[in-house]
Amino acid sequence: MIKAGIIGATGYAGGELVRLLLRHSETELIWLGSRSYTGQRYADIYRNMTSLEDAVCSDDNMQSLAEEADVIFTATPQGFCAGAVNDDILKKTKIIDLSADFRLKDVKVYEEWYKIRHASPQFLDEAVYGLCELNRKKISGARIIANPGCYTTCSILTLWPLVREGLIDPDTIIIDAKSGTSGAGRGEKLQNLFCEVNENVKAYGVATHRHTPEIEEQLSYAAGRGIRLNFTPHLIPMNRGILVTAYADLAAEGIRKEEIRGAYKKYYGSEPFIRLLGDGVCPETKWVEGSNFTDIGFCLDERTGRVIAMGALDNLVKGAAGQAVQNMNLLFGLPENTGLDIVPVFP
Amino acid sequence: MIKAGIIGATGYAGGELVRLLLRHSETELIWLGSRSYTGQRYADIYRNMTSLEDAVCSDDNMQSLAEEADVIFTATPQGFCAGAVNDDILKKTKIIDLSADFRLKDVKVYEEWYKIRHASPQFLDEAVYGLCELNRKKISGARIIANPGCYTTCSILTLWPLVREGLIDPDTIIIDAKSGTSGAGRGEKLQNLFCEVNENVKAYGVATHRHTPEIEEQLSYAAGRGIRLNFTPHLIPMNRGILVTAYADLAAEGIRKEEIRGAYKKYYGSEPFIRLLGDGVCPETKWVEGSNFTDIGFCLDERTGRVIAMGALDNLVKGAAGQAVQNMNLLFGLPENTGLDIVPVFP
Amino acid sequence: MIKAGIIGATGYAGGELVRLLLRHSETELIWLGSRSYTGQRYADIYRNMTSLEDAVCSDDNMQSLAEEADVIFTATPQGFCAGAVNDDILKKTKIIDLSADFRLKDVKVYEEWYKIRHASPQFLDEAVYGLCELNRKKISGARIIANPGCYTTCSILTLWPLVREGLIDPDTIIIDAKSGTSGAGRGEKLQNLFCEVNENVKAYGVATHRHTPEIEEQLSYAAGRGIRLNFTPHLIPMNRGILVTAYADLAAEGIRKEEIRGAYKKYYGSEPFIRLLGDGVCPETKWVEGSNFTDIGFCLDERTGRVIAMGALDNLVKGAAGQAVQNMNLLFGLPENTGLDIVPVFP
Amino acid sequence: MIKAGIIGATGYAGGELVRLLLRHSETELIWLGSRSYTGQRYADIYRNMTSLEDAVCSDDNMQSLAEEADVIFTATPQGFCAGAVNDDILKKTKIIDLSADFRLKDVKVYEEWYKIRHASPQFLDEAVYGLCELNRKKISGARIIANPGCYTTCSILTLWPLVREGLIDPDTIIIDAKSGTSGAGRGEKLQNLFCEVNENVKAYGVATHRHTPEIEEQLSYAAGRGIRLNFTPHLIPMNRGILVTAYADLAAEGIRKEEIRGAYKKYYGSEPFIRLLGDGVCPETKWVEGSNFTDIGFCLDERTGRVIAMGALDNLVKGAAGQAVQNMNLLFGLPENTGLDIVPVFP
Repeated sequence: MIKAGIIGATGYAGGELVRLLLRHSETELIWLGSRSYTGQRYADIYRNMTSLEDAVCSDDNMQSLAEEADVIFTATPQGFCAGAVNDDILKKTKIIDLSADFRLKDVKVYEEWYKIRHASPQFLDEAVYGLCELNRKKISGARIIANPGCYTTCSILTLWPLVREGLIDPDTIIIDAKSGTSGAGRGEKLQNLFCEVNENVKAYGVATHRHTPEIEEQLSYAAGRGIRLNFTPHLIPMNRGILVTAYADLAAEGIRKEEIRGAYKKYYGSEPFIRLLGDGVCPETKWVEGSNFTDIGFCLDERTGRVIAMGALDNLVKGAAGQAVQNMNLLFGLPENTGLDIVPVFP
Repeated sequence: MIKAGIIGATGYAGGELVRLLLRHSETELIWLGSRSYTGQRYADIYRNMTSLEDAVCSDDNMQSLAEEADVIFTATPQGFCAGAVNDDILKKTKIIDLSADFRLKDVKVYEEWYKIRHASPQFLDEAVYGLCELNRKKISGARIIANPGCYTTCSILTLWPLVREGLIDPDTIIIDAKSGTSGAGRGEKLQNLFCEVNENVKAYGVATHRHTPEIEEQLSYAAGRGIRLNFTPHLIPMNRGILVTAYADLAAEGIRKEEIRGAYKKYYGSEPFIRLLGDGVCPETKWVEGSNFTDIGFCLDERTGRVIAMGALDNLVKGAAGQAVQNMNLLFGLPENTGLDIVPVFP
Repeated sequence: MIKAGIIGATGYAGGELVRLLLRHSETELIWLGSRSYTGQRYADIYRNMTSLEDAVCSDDNMQSLAEEADVIFTATPQGFCAGAVNDDILKKTKIIDLSADFRLKDVKVYEEWYKIRHASPQFLDEAVYGLCELNRKKISGARIIANPGCYTTCSILTLWPLVREGLIDPDTIIIDAKSGTSGAGRGEKLQNLFCEVNENVKAYGVATHRHTPEIEEQLSYAAGRGIRLNFTPHLIPMNRGILVTAYADLAAEGIRKEEIRGAYKKYYGSEPFIRLLGDGVCPETKWVEGSNFTDIGFCLDERTGRVIAMGALDNLVKGAAGQAVQNMNLLFGLPENTGLDIVPVFP
Repeated sequence: MIKAGIIGATGYAGGELVRLLLRHSETELIWLGSRSYTGQRYADIYRNMTSLEDAVCSDDNMQSLAEEADVIFTATPQGFCAGAVNDDILKKTKIIDLSADFRLKDVKVYEEWYKIRHASPQFLDEAVYGLCELNRKKISGARIIANPGCYTTCSILTLWPLVREGLIDPDTIIIDAKSGTSGAGRGEKLQNLFCEVNENVKAYGVATHRHTPEIEEQLSYAAGRGIRLNFTPHLIPMNRGILVTAYADLAAEGIRKEEIRGAYKKYYGSEPFIRLLGDGVCPETKWVEGSNFTDIGFCLDERTGRVIAMGALDNLVKGAAGQAVQNMNLLFGLPENTGLDIVPVFP
């Protein structure tokens, strides 16, 4: 059994990790770390866990945890993981970091967008960007995995084959994303109150959202050159789910629908967690809820010469905890869908 | 492998049966019957099933299905199962009926509350009321199981120990219930439209709801005599979940909280799917979402001499499909939690 | 023009007062007091007010405000108004207090349920309980009006005629109430977060909610003797609205539906803000949204000998700001519906 | 008093017209036409109207109505108004059509996008496109007003000044729109059911939505040449509100934020129903709910050389009934905000 510990177990992503790992046949959950709730019963904080998880919350001491755990998940604010990790820890355990600390290769870009100093730039090189569908091989040998952001996973998976195959002009990419409110975390903030979110929709972080450089970096690898794009997130009155609606000009006139579909099939044809929807079918977040799937659909608009590519995932699963478990499975040589073989819940 | 067929697979309860049975290790799903969608791909109707279920919908011919299936689930409107079942079918297969056709022992009560003639009263006697926690033994040997209603399951489980132990006066029971909208089914009706349900709460079926006699019959067994009670359902703007808030006078002065708790422990102490919450903790529907649990809490109000007992379950799981699977497990001698070992989803 | 000031203008009830008073033909809004936002533009806090209200938030100094205002609304936490009011202020201005400070006549009951010492018990006697339909005459001559609670208004209006006319046994009253989340205020609390409230329903404050003694006191006046009842509030995933479902035994056998209806007509037949619904029609919160109406319906259950009486109102209007304006109209001799002649918004 | 009749009074837009006209000081509502509910009391269909509107629904005979009414609102399906109107009617009354029948000048475009034959193309020329902010003068003298679509109003108002002033390249416009569910109407359709919409977000009508040519036609007038753009609507789990997020390349390098703001001020600086938000403030649908406002904000992204312009309105008010009343006010020479002086409801 893999001994797994979580630091940040009482946030929404941490809670989702607990949900998934409790039903992961090869894992033993040995540490539920929480700075805010140290010493309290986990099931008193998340009562859905009553009778399922008896543990008391531990603290957030990564060094201590590294003595016991085969793998540590950090579902913590930006800066925590970079501030806590060290070479000794990495010799003893694997780190799957759900924060942004190791996602961007360029420390300057990190510090510019996140407005904090990076405490461990020496590990940036070896950290592997844990988007399983793209980096499967590198992940299996890594010590630190940078688990991608929720918007990022959805955006990159939706666009990667089209950029990689040169079917769209990467300089024209516009990503309009919609997210459920669990993506905003469990913080006690005015803008997360029920009455502020319910019956409302708004854009936020326009032109400044921190997932932008992460999307740009990954799609730059696909394009073979640096690209810039627009990414606009919106807050939707629902708990879970991300929908990405991405727009781009076709790279050339005359590109046909079949070529677009062909590109998706080439990259995702045998992916267990990507479902390419049929012609004219637009993804809906409800169809993936609770599961690790990303659903993708597209439309080629011949009137305007643009592709509208759409992707949907559950921000807490494929956008956070599910992908983290998928990464763990890769790290430990398990079948990739271990513990993730979940039928989406509808309605 | 148990060969299972569903008639009414495209309603919400039917869809939930598919979700659960696809992950039930001992079952093979051989028939997804749907009068409305016969001949259409199931995953085109419920796109959450894309890549998970390739079947095309069959029709609703119970006789044909009985030739192939070890167990038939009917998630159909009132009257269908009673109209289709016959002795030959019952010799070949087991029936788990999610409708009300075999829940009430007295055919007159059925015909009075449901306003239809019962087509198979000859099977009423042998049919077993499939509330697993109460009738576990009888269920295992039955041919027809009447799977209880969603409101009913929640109401009975919440009150049974208190009535059975004589701690409350059964003539004073008032049940105020709140349900998510999936309980109203997938019918294209004005009152189920988003804009009619959202941002709204209302009572309906006041003093006339059909689950009333079912609750009364079962609690009468607990009381050892006929009882009458008030049951008022309310429609809540959420997808899933039932909360029951039940009120009753204490049977005698001086009954203490510990006795109430003792009664619950006596009946439910080792139940896998009932969770008795701690002192002062009120159940919330979110804590059981997607799972087969019923959570129960209570408050003894010394000022008024009443107990307020509260129960919460997911109407599509413990209130319908989950309980049906639990019944199937009992019928076929499987561990009762096979396929039902689900961690509730939060948020 | 009446010069009106609000202390606590940035809570939800305060915001609703601003909405109503901006369209009140006889009022000038001269003071938007807010301890938290003093010095900030009101329309930057409530952006729905952009271009409608240019004021900057004042502080919460009641003494200063009393020099300028003809009427002061306090939409503040318990204890504020009692701590700030004094005889000099009451000589200069009228107070309409939306908190509980002056609702209960017995200071011991207040201190027991609210767990704070009352700073001005000397004004309890003269304060008038501002339930307009019951105390219209007294209100018009008052100096301090205790604006009733939201649950309270709905509960009392729903039951008053039945208790007053002796049609129900007041010792059997059970009030099961459901409220939208704006009733919980704008505080940054975990339990008010979108993801904690959405897709969820729960009871809270069972047997201990502070509106209980207020309902009991008022209905005791109707009964002519002290009564005790059960009141259970529930949190509903919607912004606005309160629904009360109240149960009581008929006072005697043979009481007919027409007598119940007659009692309602007797007390409310000419009330501008109470709508008695037709036979078999249950109130829905959506039908009163944004308006000052209370809708009332009932069902007499002959099987059990009980009445189920139901009331619905908008907790921020008739349950708070609308009733406060109605009280102001009475105080200043204006037509009672001035500024309140609002058509409910649907959907 | 203006005698006003509505055909299609029982849809959501029709209901909103009733709400607004009941509080319009210069209007008498003489006809609530409804094919589905002819002969039924209006307040039995929309119970929010209890005690406010006593009328019984009339039929949908435009000829009869024209004998009595000064103005007829048609809130009917596409094709109805074009099929019913004739020269005699237009001599007797004014028509404000909330359907698409007279919005597009080119009958071929209409028939191509709406897939029905236009029954009265002879009136297309004289019909005036009722976007009040753009066509104020023409509207005042018209006989037929084509009241714009909800998505259309929001999209055009958000982009018009930027296109008109040549600040953006109109060939790069992408409009990503999000709408509450009341925009889908009150039809009893599967996709409008609560459980299908709630906790879900999806795009629909991608590259084929019928509001596209309407937006293109109007913005072509601004550009002075034909343009094509992408318009993608999304369904949001809320009752009301449209948010438009529009993207376009700057027309030239070096265009500054101040120029963008200047363009908005030039066109909308004195508009009563358009609110230009401050720097960095993104519109939210909640801020305009129930009112006739359109809120507009924008962001200039220097990294990508694009503008992100955002607009929000209430689809049933400025997107339908409110704009229709605004058009009526212009037609009859009333102050434009008569009956529309509404403070948005929050929360």
